[in-house]
Amino acid sequence: MVISARGGGGQVRPDGGGQALMLKIGARALIRKVFTEKEVIQFAELSLDRNPLHLDKEVGKASIFGQRVVHGMLVASLFSGLIGMELPGKGSIYLGQTLTFKAPVFIGEAVTATVEIIKIRKDKPIVTLSTVCEKDSGQVVITGEAVVKVPEMIPVS
Amino acid sequence: MVISARGGGGQVRPDGGGQALMLKIGARALIRKVFTEKEVIQFAELSLDRNPLHLDKEVGKASIFGQRVVHGMLVASLFSGLIGMELPGKGSIYLGQTLTFKAPVFIGEAVTATVEIIKIRKDKPIVTLSTVCEKDSGQVVITGEAVVKVPEMIPVS
Repeated sequence: MVISARGGGGQVRPDGGGQALMLKIGARALIRKVFTEKEVIQFAELSLDRNPLHLDKEVGKASIFGQRVVHGMLVASLFSGLIGMELPGKGSIYLGQTLTFKAPVFIGEAVTATVEIIKIRKDKPIVTLSTVCEKDSGQVVITGEAVVKVPEMIPVS
Repeated sequence: MVISARGGGGQVRPDGGGQALMLKIGARALIRKVFTEKEVIQFAELSLDRNPLHLDKEVGKASIFGQRVVHGMLVASLFSGLIGMELPGKGSIYLGQTLTFKAPVFIGEAVTATVEIIKIRKDKPIVTLSTVCEKDSGQVVITGEAVVKVPEMIPVS
């Protein structure tokens, strides 16, 4: 389900640990996912965000969106998945994330989240990634950036 | 479970709709929550973030943190809950969120998330809230800001 398209030009940064983790400017990972009604309900319970705009069909229908909307933070959680599993990968430590929610995502609608390394610090094992999520139509639903400590200092399985 | 301590000085902004939604600079809402192992596993499935730092006891133990860490985005989802349910409340539309993850949260550890209105736009029904999450010890684990469209234009139940 996760497609990791590493590559691109730019800087190569081998880490200082035992694993030769190669991170390059332009390296990308992406994932396409459809959020189900069940997942929206689960996230509502985890976050305690039971805003009827997400859960109530009638409220969704009567809203400016015309239907229920997937929680923005649930969609954004895909960035956590890509960062934690793919790029930089297991053992990564999330230092920061900015998010701009640009358009609603509806239940049953496919979105593709992409993370791409845009900055590699030379003094510390920290990278910045652009984080973008869009629909199949190309409509962008979330933009932002993540700052991540790479796992060189952390034992990973 | 949610404590809403509205108040503070500053600007009062009645909305233009049928409901007299009063938003003030300094208005706050907060919630205290403990994340369980079950919830961390559920979030791992929703976000596809199965980073062993969150899920694997041995990896957590061997990490710099000494134990498994709750996903930062799961902790941050409490802000979504407060915004969607309390302040500004049902029908709110999330426009943006910045997050700085300052310290790990462990499974079974209580955290309190607080949102507070720090800016009210005069030209549009949009507010900015500070978003902070801390442990009972006072240690801050997440800081950031949210930008939210208030629900005056959205039918709420």
